[in-house]
Amino acid sequence: MSQPSMIWSAVDFERDGKQVDYLRLPHSSDLSAYGWIPIPLIVIRNGTGPTLLLTAGTHGDEYEGQIALIRLVQELAAERVNGRVIVAPALNFPAVMAGRRVSPLDDGNLNRLFPGRAAGSPTQMLAHYVDSVLFPMADAVIDLHSGGRSLDYLPLALAHPGRTPEHAAHVRELIEAFGAPVSVLTDGSGGGGATTLYARAAERGIPALTTELGGGATLSPDGLAVAETGLRRVLAHYGIVPGMAETGPSGTRLMRSLGRAAAVYAPESGLFQPSVAVGARVTAGQEAGRIFFPDSPMREPVTLTFPASGMVSCRRFPTLTARGDCLFNLMDDC
Amino acid sequence: MSQPSMIWSAVDFERDGKQVDYLRLPHSSDLSAYGWIPIPLIVIRNGTGPTLLLTAGTHGDEYEGQIALIRLVQELAAERVNGRVIVAPALNFPAVMAGRRVSPLDDGNLNRLFPGRAAGSPTQMLAHYVDSVLFPMADAVIDLHSGGRSLDYLPLALAHPGRTPEHAAHVRELIEAFGAPVSVLTDGSGGGGATTLYARAAERGIPALTTELGGGATLSPDGLAVAETGLRRVLAHYGIVPGMAETGPSGTRLMRSLGRAAAVYAPESGLFQPSVAVGARVTAGQEAGRIFFPDSPMREPVTLTFPASGMVSCRRFPTLTARGDCLFNLMDDC
Amino acid sequence: MSQPSMIWSAVDFERDGKQVDYLRLPHSSDLSAYGWIPIPLIVIRNGTGPTLLLTAGTHGDEYEGQIALIRLVQELAAERVNGRVIVAPALNFPAVMAGRRVSPLDDGNLNRLFPGRAAGSPTQMLAHYVDSVLFPMADAVIDLHSGGRSLDYLPLALAHPGRTPEHAAHVRELIEAFGAPVSVLTDGSGGGGATTLYARAAERGIPALTTELGGGATLSPDGLAVAETGLRRVLAHYGIVPGMAETGPSGTRLMRSLGRAAAVYAPESGLFQPSVAVGARVTAGQEAGRIFFPDSPMREPVTLTFPASGMVSCRRFPTLTARGDCLFNLMDDC
Amino acid sequence: MSQPSMIWSAVDFERDGKQVDYLRLPHSSDLSAYGWIPIPLIVIRNGTGPTLLLTAGTHGDEYEGQIALIRLVQELAAERVNGRVIVAPALNFPAVMAGRRVSPLDDGNLNRLFPGRAAGSPTQMLAHYVDSVLFPMADAVIDLHSGGRSLDYLPLALAHPGRTPEHAAHVRELIEAFGAPVSVLTDGSGGGGATTLYARAAERGIPALTTELGGGATLSPDGLAVAETGLRRVLAHYGIVPGMAETGPSGTRLMRSLGRAAAVYAPESGLFQPSVAVGARVTAGQEAGRIFFPDSPMREPVTLTFPASGMVSCRRFPTLTARGDCLFNLMDDC
Amino acid sequence: MSQPSMIWSAVDFERDGKQVDYLRLPHSSDLSAYGWIPIPLIVIRNGTGPTLLLTAGTHGDEYEGQIALIRLVQELAAERVNGRVIVAPALNFPAVMAGRRVSPLDDGNLNRLFPGRAAGSPTQMLAHYVDSVLFPMADAVIDLHSGGRSLDYLPLALAHPGRTPEHAAHVRELIEAFGAPVSVLTDGSGGGGATTLYARAAERGIPALTTELGGGATLSPDGLAVAETGLRRVLAHYGIVPGMAETGPSGTRLMRSLGRAAAVYAPESGLFQPSVAVGARVTAGQEAGRIFFPDSPMREPVTLTFPASGMVSCRRFPTLTARGDCLFNLMDDC
Amino acid sequence: MSQPSMIWSAVDFERDGKQVDYLRLPHSSDLSAYGWIPIPLIVIRNGTGPTLLLTAGTHGDEYEGQIALIRLVQELAAERVNGRVIVAPALNFPAVMAGRRVSPLDDGNLNRLFPGRAAGSPTQMLAHYVDSVLFPMADAVIDLHSGGRSLDYLPLALAHPGRTPEHAAHVRELIEAFGAPVSVLTDGSGGGGATTLYARAAERGIPALTTELGGGATLSPDGLAVAETGLRRVLAHYGIVPGMAETGPSGTRLMRSLGRAAAVYAPESGLFQPSVAVGARVTAGQEAGRIFFPDSPMREPVTLTFPASGMVSCRRFPTLTARGDCLFNLMDDC
Repeated sequence: MSQPSMIWSAVDFERDGKQVDYLRLPHSSDLSAYGWIPIPLIVIRNGTGPTLLLTAGTHGDEYEGQIALIRLVQELAAERVNGRVIVAPALNFPAVMAGRRVSPLDDGNLNRLFPGRAAGSPTQMLAHYVDSVLFPMADAVIDLHSGGRSLDYLPLALAHPGRTPEHAAHVRELIEAFGAPVSVLTDGSGGGGATTLYARAAERGIPALTTELGGGATLSPDGLAVAETGLRRVLAHYGIVPGMAETGPSGTRLMRSLGRAAAVYAPESGLFQPSVAVGARVTAGQEAGRIFFPDSPMREPVTLTFPASGMVSCRRFPTLTARGDCLFNLMDDC
Repeated sequence: MSQPSMIWSAVDFERDGKQVDYLRLPHSSDLSAYGWIPIPLIVIRNGTGPTLLLTAGTHGDEYEGQIALIRLVQELAAERVNGRVIVAPALNFPAVMAGRRVSPLDDGNLNRLFPGRAAGSPTQMLAHYVDSVLFPMADAVIDLHSGGRSLDYLPLALAHPGRTPEHAAHVRELIEAFGAPVSVLTDGSGGGGATTLYARAAERGIPALTTELGGGATLSPDGLAVAETGLRRVLAHYGIVPGMAETGPSGTRLMRSLGRAAAVYAPESGLFQPSVAVGARVTAGQEAGRIFFPDSPMREPVTLTFPASGMVSCRRFPTLTARGDCLFNLMDDC
Repeated sequence: MSQPSMIWSAVDFERDGKQVDYLRLPHSSDLSAYGWIPIPLIVIRNGTGPTLLLTAGTHGDEYEGQIALIRLVQELAAERVNGRVIVAPALNFPAVMAGRRVSPLDDGNLNRLFPGRAAGSPTQMLAHYVDSVLFPMADAVIDLHSGGRSLDYLPLALAHPGRTPEHAAHVRELIEAFGAPVSVLTDGSGGGGATTLYARAAERGIPALTTELGGGATLSPDGLAVAETGLRRVLAHYGIVPGMAETGPSGTRLMRSLGRAAAVYAPESGLFQPSVAVGARVTAGQEAGRIFFPDSPMREPVTLTFPASGMVSCRRFPTLTARGDCLFNLMDDC
Repeated sequence: MSQPSMIWSAVDFERDGKQVDYLRLPHSSDLSAYGWIPIPLIVIRNGTGPTLLLTAGTHGDEYEGQIALIRLVQELAAERVNGRVIVAPALNFPAVMAGRRVSPLDDGNLNRLFPGRAAGSPTQMLAHYVDSVLFPMADAVIDLHSGGRSLDYLPLALAHPGRTPEHAAHVRELIEAFGAPVSVLTDGSGGGGATTLYARAAERGIPALTTELGGGATLSPDGLAVAETGLRRVLAHYGIVPGMAETGPSGTRLMRSLGRAAAVYAPESGLFQPSVAVGARVTAGQEAGRIFFPDSPMREPVTLTFPASGMVSCRRFPTLTARGDCLFNLMDDC
Repeated sequence: MSQPSMIWSAVDFERDGKQVDYLRLPHSSDLSAYGWIPIPLIVIRNGTGPTLLLTAGTHGDEYEGQIALIRLVQELAAERVNGRVIVAPALNFPAVMAGRRVSPLDDGNLNRLFPGRAAGSPTQMLAHYVDSVLFPMADAVIDLHSGGRSLDYLPLALAHPGRTPEHAAHVRELIEAFGAPVSVLTDGSGGGGATTLYARAAERGIPALTTELGGGATLSPDGLAVAETGLRRVLAHYGIVPGMAETGPSGTRLMRSLGRAAAVYAPESGLFQPSVAVGARVTAGQEAGRIFFPDSPMREPVTLTFPASGMVSCRRFPTLTARGDCLFNLMDDC
Repeated sequence: MSQPSMIWSAVDFERDGKQVDYLRLPHSSDLSAYGWIPIPLIVIRNGTGPTLLLTAGTHGDEYEGQIALIRLVQELAAERVNGRVIVAPALNFPAVMAGRRVSPLDDGNLNRLFPGRAAGSPTQMLAHYVDSVLFPMADAVIDLHSGGRSLDYLPLALAHPGRTPEHAAHVRELIEAFGAPVSVLTDGSGGGGATTLYARAAERGIPALTTELGGGATLSPDGLAVAETGLRRVLAHYGIVPGMAETGPSGTRLMRSLGRAAAVYAPESGLFQPSVAVGARVTAGQEAGRIFFPDSPMREPVTLTFPASGMVSCRRFPTLTARGDCLFNLMDDC
């Protein structure tokens, strides 16, 4: 438990300036006995302000956050900073290079493995490093996700509500500062529960936010804009980069996830034709979609309905579906 | 060369009525010594009219055509038919079940293997069957494609211009009958050249059409509508299902592909951010997109420009790209 | 340790009637971010009698139990039941669909992973659910196995002898009720030891039985009959389905496993020709088989002998063998 | 076409004595630039009699023939021979070592690739060698098969009827000499057609026989006895090893395959329960088996019937089946 | 933690004589339900002297130690022994047979998994057996390594310095007895840290040594000689085989590893051209090598320099390199 | 046969100057419908002199040639050239990037597939392009090889002797100009025969040379020097870059390969300990090496002898060997 991480870096987190190196994750393989996996890490520090931890590429096939963070670290000069920004724009680096949700080294889904293990598989070691080394330095955490290959998501932010009234207030402050068009409070039901990066940060009492900014393993211009605006607003709000953006009220629409009880799951394997798009408001009993059967073309399609009323936060992106796949999630105003 | 196909079926192509069976492709494997791959086949025949060959799932991850054909064969009663409709809605069946462009059995891209081989790999045997058994029965061929996992396509139809003036006229008639919003004449440059299903049909002098109806391995409602309307118009126009749709002029916009000389290819591997969407009109020299580098976040992004003026027919869909990937294709009015 | 299972179900175990749903095992993959693996689950409940937990497909390539349980749940109306029957006829579902002993998702052998882990791999999560959720509800457990692809087994039942005299008596009662032709007491030596489903149930003090009903990944009509008769006898004996079968003494022959000290293991890799069949009575020193060498056909075959006397309970099924493979296990009368 | 084989051997086919070497199949791989695959080859030559070519392991998971030929070459002293015996007991050697029907090097099914290619994949090169080098030396060919992993077969011999009356007489002579309990004339329909080893030998006018001696990737003692008796009878009959066995009439029962029109194929994927065993006589319309659905246990099983009357020559061995798998083949008396 | 190992053996460690068997590691797989992996084990015991544990093949692609130990156990008669020698010349047996650093069964690097797990993956189970069963019997441990496929190493011995002054003295005694040309004290930094076999033995207070004897997955005659001489000297020194070699001072050159701070790691992926060879003395700032870019041949090569002065203990062997690979390690005199 | 290549390039072979682009090999895959594989190509042309074709990376794990050609194209300014130099330093590009002898796309060994196929697999298409497009432009061809992962080679040049006296003279001129320490005449026996790049060039009547410059997938400084000196001498000799090197007699030692009859092949699988090094002169009957058995450590090693006298040109590099692997090749003075 108290075993220290074997991941290291040439970065000195206490030094002022912009440092660029890697999280060096030892991986002793057939072709590299003493080598390490180079996970890009940028630390920009100046003055005495708070520390913001920014990550993307936790799932390798989600891109808005990766590009937003790359642009941010290229733009941000150390002199403008008052505090510290720790940025890992391609956190599960092997997954990023493979364009996959999970790491090709160990099939590890980094956002399902927290708090990780110091002496586990590469992805477990990475979760453990984030939890045991980076979180203790962070005053706030933003982990930028999108729908990835399997989901299409309305651009929004997500957060666990907070463990104490004080923590809840800090979470609300972060949500408001980020200012996504929609911000959703959730307990992780139907998603990764307590095993995600942001849920673990929340468990440690850190204000933490995640996002969903598009999907389908492509790039959403709208989602990218939400990420870039939100990051600037947060940096400005906390005084880390004063004046980087306006910091007034964002008018984000506060909603809550309706969880797995309101989700639509595929009852059969086949081709999924959705009847509604993300952002639609639906009513319990309304047609959600149909499933066709390419191996048995004369078989009647199966019609699906919504089990609850609400607004569609995401839908399955690929047409080919298997029994048990999530087809729709719903949310509603708080 | 003159070797007969080993693929067989319980269908009698000369019998009236609606028959549902499989193309039975022998595949002698560890787990099935005498088994065959069941490729769904529906033949609807009545009276003495022409024969239309309709295929989808030539690439397994392209869905608008698959669903359009499944709905068509479910709806179409034999009595309404005057002629013959041969339908294979999931032609490269192993690829369809895997949700992949190519077959998992032999990595075979069915739309790059025509005219195929009687004693080749499963996908080669299938191309050979289509070419040697189905094409000789067909008066017209429509093979419904979309962009699949790697491309995002403006909904449109494509055809080779025709080998003789008479053939060209028949091709134009089919294009006009199908009535896609845009119809593109091409020689296959930058795509599959002479090795595609529709190019091979054209080489045999058959009026043949293919489509692109969306992409990203998801379902485009607009693309599905283009497919369904087009199929009905064609069935009505040729008198196979009289009155199934209006048959007047479709007003399709006739364009020509600008080929690989006007295409944009990735000069580096990285994350591709497109600057324009499909359907946009662009000018030579205009910014086409940028490539970011997730392994080297401080490296300046590479900016790409269009080598010619025209309208964007398709763009790369996944953000992750490798040097040599096609990022944009252009077309222009004839 | 006390972490709750993430597996869920729409079944209410306390509701009367026949409910059909799935154990929903969350598995967040490239192609399904929020999806679950659908493990069929049938719960039939009525009145106040005891609870019987019935499982098959713990190894995916063992079939008599799977078919016996499918037939049972189709036949059994809730009204006939007095108590509760919980049935999972394809427990390691990914392994069942792959026709493999182990799961293709994590190479997990479900019958070697008890008591499992709440936050482990899919197969570990499944073992943990069975142990932490299903076992506490069960008054008796029957897990139906066969030899699978690698073994040929005489149809028989197996049980750990019991941890206390009372438990031992309950085990004997269950054995007698099931009434296999042969019933074997074992400590798991040479097999899965304490890591199997039924060994774990026994460790919890539940009367638990497993079976071996054939092998070779095919279906034994005799083994299927043993399963079906045994299940009916047990349901009748415990009063859960009164009168479903005669419940008098079954006359099962009680034997004991001779363990790994009496087993024959392959001393070389090659082609195994057994000299005796399952059910044969053999004497220490008797020829057990020979190993031929397909890569070195002129090499003399190696002759094997039995290290002990007894009756052959199982033999290796595939001819191709590797050093260390188990070729024969023996048992003897108690 | 007339390209010579690249396969070589240290054996001199024209030298007297018992020579043991390999067919040396060049395979230039990552780990062996100049290496070859060592396919065991034994040539026993003496005097001036005819040449018999004996092969097994054409499919790697069929064992009776492999063991019968290993025992034969160990027993047979050159002095007893009058003529030449060429023996390859593990012909598709990579498949034999992998215990698979097909080669792991190229997924090649050696019994579907005749006449092969001199510059093809390893399995194609091997077929070409057998066809272009071994067949021209052979006066008769026996290729010993069994059902392998996917089939359970009644022990029997199979032959193509012969291309001319003279060839047909020679085929009948070989069948009678081998003396399997049942001998079946076939044109290969439903099996490998013209692409098999023995079909190719027959096309060259050589009397050629194949066998089926059991199945399931295990060893049938009865099948092994049929192989050993048959080989001895043939060697004696042709005077190659005079007196090795009695050579009178064998009383083999001559039957004919009913081909694919009489076969039962799986209409659905699921668990196959056969209703009859190999060797059973069945009537058109009789129940052949049932298919259960492990993913949908409440779905009614599908019942199958025989499309013709005859005797069951083989059935599918594994319980798990996919649509298109062959479940039963039938034969009938000539 | 206190769970006993499931690995067993027919060897009786307390019996006099030379015993040859296997560590029998249970591995229940699709093709072997009750089988075990046969890890060769030789125990030679006589009289009352100390116990020496000798291992090689901990990484499967390192060969000098494997051959040295095979030759030793063939030569060593029990009568010559005064004490006990426990030898496992191919410890991670699946890795040895695959010629890989890690096991193909679970990708397990045995020298990164100590202290292992009793109920873990095969490689974890093996580490646990060595730690919990073999170490408690050992008075000294020698684990023979080489550079393997990815490194080229100067022949040398390595040891952790010792946990107490007494332990340190014992370590020095073992180093001196073995007498490699160079002996290096290290804390494992830049290598396997505390997770290696010899580090774990040291942690238990056992004098323990490892070696590096060449590399590149080939055999170094010099390295083999170092291993053979060292083993004989140790056996003689401890009186286990008196007189097997001279036992005077070896004159080994005692050095210390400079750890990862002095290592050169690849800053880019490409083709690595080293500027110096192993054994060279280098100065901080000196050119270490260059990296060329095969995908971009016109790109200027990157030049690397040493970050410290010292002697090169190892260099990367393969030319193809990836960012993060270790290119050079340095050591210096104590 | 006369089908044109689908590979294209932006290079104009007839234009003066230094052009850098790719051979663009179309490969339509799941992730890139219209993409191509970028094989680096540099063409340097000026004036009217002869054309030299230079290739490396034909096998991806052979490095001296790759680095020599990268350095050459970086150094060579177009103005210095009198004629044309066509350079592909990483010819089988997918194999180069994978560090493998064969392409990971199709397991294609480019140096065993000539003359290739226009519509074949990627590696076949590449062979066809070299043969049909590049060879017709070339006055001389040099394809730079080394031993790769599986061989250790004495640095030398190899050539087929020539098809006519005139061709033979041109070959001798090229050999002499290149001036390797040793130059070997061969017919390809024991290697790739007529299917190699340089054998095909020779068949077309072009003077063609290949090299072997080291091995083991690492970089030989001596081999690199031989390549660089040889290339400069050839460019100078033919007047393409006058004065680039001295062009007098090189004093290369002319030898001939003794072919496969003089080779040593592994008679068993195990660990290979060579008794002699490359360059050694050996006598028929002399000990060549031994094979140890890691799975059976007490088995006596097998001793190997040379079947002929000569000088060792190469030996197997990896210690782990399989029956059939080439352990030594011999050559002798002409």
